[in-house]
Amino acid sequence: MAGRAYVETVGQHEGEQATIKGWLYNKTDKGKLQFLLVRDGTGIIQAVAFRDDMPAEAFKAAQQATQESSIIMTGIVRADKRAPGGYELALTSLEIVQLADPYPITPKDHGVGFLMDHRHLWLRSARQHAILKVRAEVIRACRDYLDDNGFVLVDTPILTPAACEGTSTLFETDYFGESAYLAQSGQLYSEASIASLGKVYCFGPTFRAEKSKTRRHLLEFWMVEPEMAYADLDDCIELAEGFVAYIVQTVLDRQKAQLEVLERDTTLLEKVTPPFPRLSYDEAVAMLREQGHDMEWGDDFGAPEETALAQKSDKPVLIHRFPTQSKAFYMEPDPERPELSLSVDCLAPEGYGEIIGGGQRIADYDLLLTRVKEHKLPEEAFRWYLDLRRYGSTPHSGFGLGIERTVAWICGLEHIRETISFPRMLHRLYP
Amino acid sequence: MAGRAYVETVGQHEGEQATIKGWLYNKTDKGKLQFLLVRDGTGIIQAVAFRDDMPAEAFKAAQQATQESSIIMTGIVRADKRAPGGYELALTSLEIVQLADPYPITPKDHGVGFLMDHRHLWLRSARQHAILKVRAEVIRACRDYLDDNGFVLVDTPILTPAACEGTSTLFETDYFGESAYLAQSGQLYSEASIASLGKVYCFGPTFRAEKSKTRRHLLEFWMVEPEMAYADLDDCIELAEGFVAYIVQTVLDRQKAQLEVLERDTTLLEKVTPPFPRLSYDEAVAMLREQGHDMEWGDDFGAPEETALAQKSDKPVLIHRFPTQSKAFYMEPDPERPELSLSVDCLAPEGYGEIIGGGQRIADYDLLLTRVKEHKLPEEAFRWYLDLRRYGSTPHSGFGLGIERTVAWICGLEHIRETISFPRMLHRLYP
Repeated sequence: MAGRAYVETVGQHEGEQATIKGWLYNKTDKGKLQFLLVRDGTGIIQAVAFRDDMPAEAFKAAQQATQESSIIMTGIVRADKRAPGGYELALTSLEIVQLADPYPITPKDHGVGFLMDHRHLWLRSARQHAILKVRAEVIRACRDYLDDNGFVLVDTPILTPAACEGTSTLFETDYFGESAYLAQSGQLYSEASIASLGKVYCFGPTFRAEKSKTRRHLLEFWMVEPEMAYADLDDCIELAEGFVAYIVQTVLDRQKAQLEVLERDTTLLEKVTPPFPRLSYDEAVAMLREQGHDMEWGDDFGAPEETALAQKSDKPVLIHRFPTQSKAFYMEPDPERPELSLSVDCLAPEGYGEIIGGGQRIADYDLLLTRVKEHKLPEEAFRWYLDLRRYGSTPHSGFGLGIERTVAWICGLEHIRETISFPRMLHRLYP
Repeated sequence: MAGRAYVETVGQHEGEQATIKGWLYNKTDKGKLQFLLVRDGTGIIQAVAFRDDMPAEAFKAAQQATQESSIIMTGIVRADKRAPGGYELALTSLEIVQLADPYPITPKDHGVGFLMDHRHLWLRSARQHAILKVRAEVIRACRDYLDDNGFVLVDTPILTPAACEGTSTLFETDYFGESAYLAQSGQLYSEASIASLGKVYCFGPTFRAEKSKTRRHLLEFWMVEPEMAYADLDDCIELAEGFVAYIVQTVLDRQKAQLEVLERDTTLLEKVTPPFPRLSYDEAVAMLREQGHDMEWGDDFGAPEETALAQKSDKPVLIHRFPTQSKAFYMEPDPERPELSLSVDCLAPEGYGEIIGGGQRIADYDLLLTRVKEHKLPEEAFRWYLDLRRYGSTPHSGFGLGIERTVAWICGLEHIRETISFPRMLHRLYP
């Protein structure tokens, strides 16, 4: 009786019988010999079906198995340096669980639309499998880093009564007669929890109903947002540096094989260690203008500007102190130059754009109330948020890191749509 | 120069100067002596302000500090067995960061409505702080258990084109001209990812627009849903047992202090180890009828029935093989008795109700198509889901565990509204 084994750890059974349950990835027919590539979620193994070594029925099954058929196979585990993973299976039996219909995704080039329509199947490709593994590792690294550094996870609501930043890009739903909006950030709520827990983070899906089609935007994406009481902009920048470096180094450590599948050049990733270069917005604008970018003080950076700034270094670049007018209403102004906010963005290298946005939040009640009014926000809906400045307000700061952009950068992907299992984009709600 | 310390680890600085940044929780005025209870998110410490030991200005600040004022204080760390936490701070300086307005939550009894309206402040109470810590631990335990047992996190979409189970309890939103619904489960999507990764889980907010007001329901709640390829109902039950036991034991190990704050009797929790008692639906109905419950075969269990069944044991109780008619369309029927489904619910002890629902999913294409039609589901929207049975279908199973109910049980709470920072309930969207 052979025990169940997984491809990833099949070497533990060398010389023994092992049973693998998986899907047929590819097959080479050499008559009496069938070479099967079988994947089981943990890896891909070559299995050799030799007619004389197995019951006729089992060999016939090996001959008949179609791509993506689910199969259970048993055989002797043999070390083989030529085999992917270093081991192959000399089959003694094989059973088809379900004989797959002709598989729509073939080695030929498919258009992106076709692949997206078949996303539920496309996920099985070695490339998508590798991206999903890296994504899971990125998320685990985020949580481990924060959990191990004294942050407490506090889940913030998705259904919210009022907009954090503007209302034009909000998904709206009826909430028993009231209007509710899908959250774009959990930050405001996290600002409440820091007075209970000191350091917190939220980590959930966020939503932007943006009518844009770029390779960097999804309508639904995940964001991790740490927030700290008694912390200023410098604390925020220091956290961002340590956090990003830890994520990258953890993926390098634990998902090397998947980065190889993705043919990712990891030499640049290895350089992602603190400190990261820091540049004020003023310095960034001066640098861009010197390079010939047509830009006025106060302008936002577009993708070309972000790319140019990121080229300053192999590491992520931290841009701080953006104009107050270009940032959210809750940003603390620089006490020395109130036209600047104590804000920071982190730009990924290699043109992957902004992965972090954050900074210090307004601590003073009167100033925050002024800002709420200036931005014509519904004061009553922000009553609780204003309250936080009446009962033990502290300097506090935090940021949001976008998971999908971080995964796109670490994996070296051209388009963000591959960073999540079922991306939500303009006119893309299926599957 | 005193270094920043945290209450939780202040003992490391015994005999030295340490600075704590926190909020005033309570104060006793003895003239020349002010006893301050200060919390900093990691714990509560007593600080003693003695007029002769500190500058006049600092002592005056100690006298003036109101409840919930944010304060930074420095002093010598002294071991004191009578002090909460075992240490107190003999102050040498104190600074008020922000003098709090009169705090609305006082030691007197407030109504629940009032507390919910002030949820952003209520979170600071010792009890709510403890619940939030336990919740974070529950979630970490869920992730660690699955990550360490070969499951890969795959985030599933919140915005979905079609309902998993009925449409009457769905939140709907406009998705650029299409209708999108907030997901009630990620399971269907996870069934796609298992063919890529073998074992996966999703973990996100889920939504039910139910017009019900019970102490067990929220409109927005978090669910962790593992799903496994090549796994039957027994595998699912075994996973559920190990999972629940691990969560409970981890909280007992790591959050003992918080369970004490909650005055939770932990003797019952300590008994939560595998195996859990198992009972078929048939057996459960027979037992309930014997006990005088008025119930027909095929009926769902209400809260009184769940409580009665749970009383069978100090451990969670696993009820399996519910009538096919009472479960979702995708449930695999028992091959020996098709009127039964290969489903399982896990009932928490002490009357906390169902915390897990799951089972084996239909693997056969034709049967699933029949069910889709019987349930009048939009076939086109389920095309991709049906596809999973055409390309390498396997027996597979999984379940969903509701985080809030699990937290309510482990913390021993009467009402689920305290299990999440900002609960969403009927007519409760603020703060």
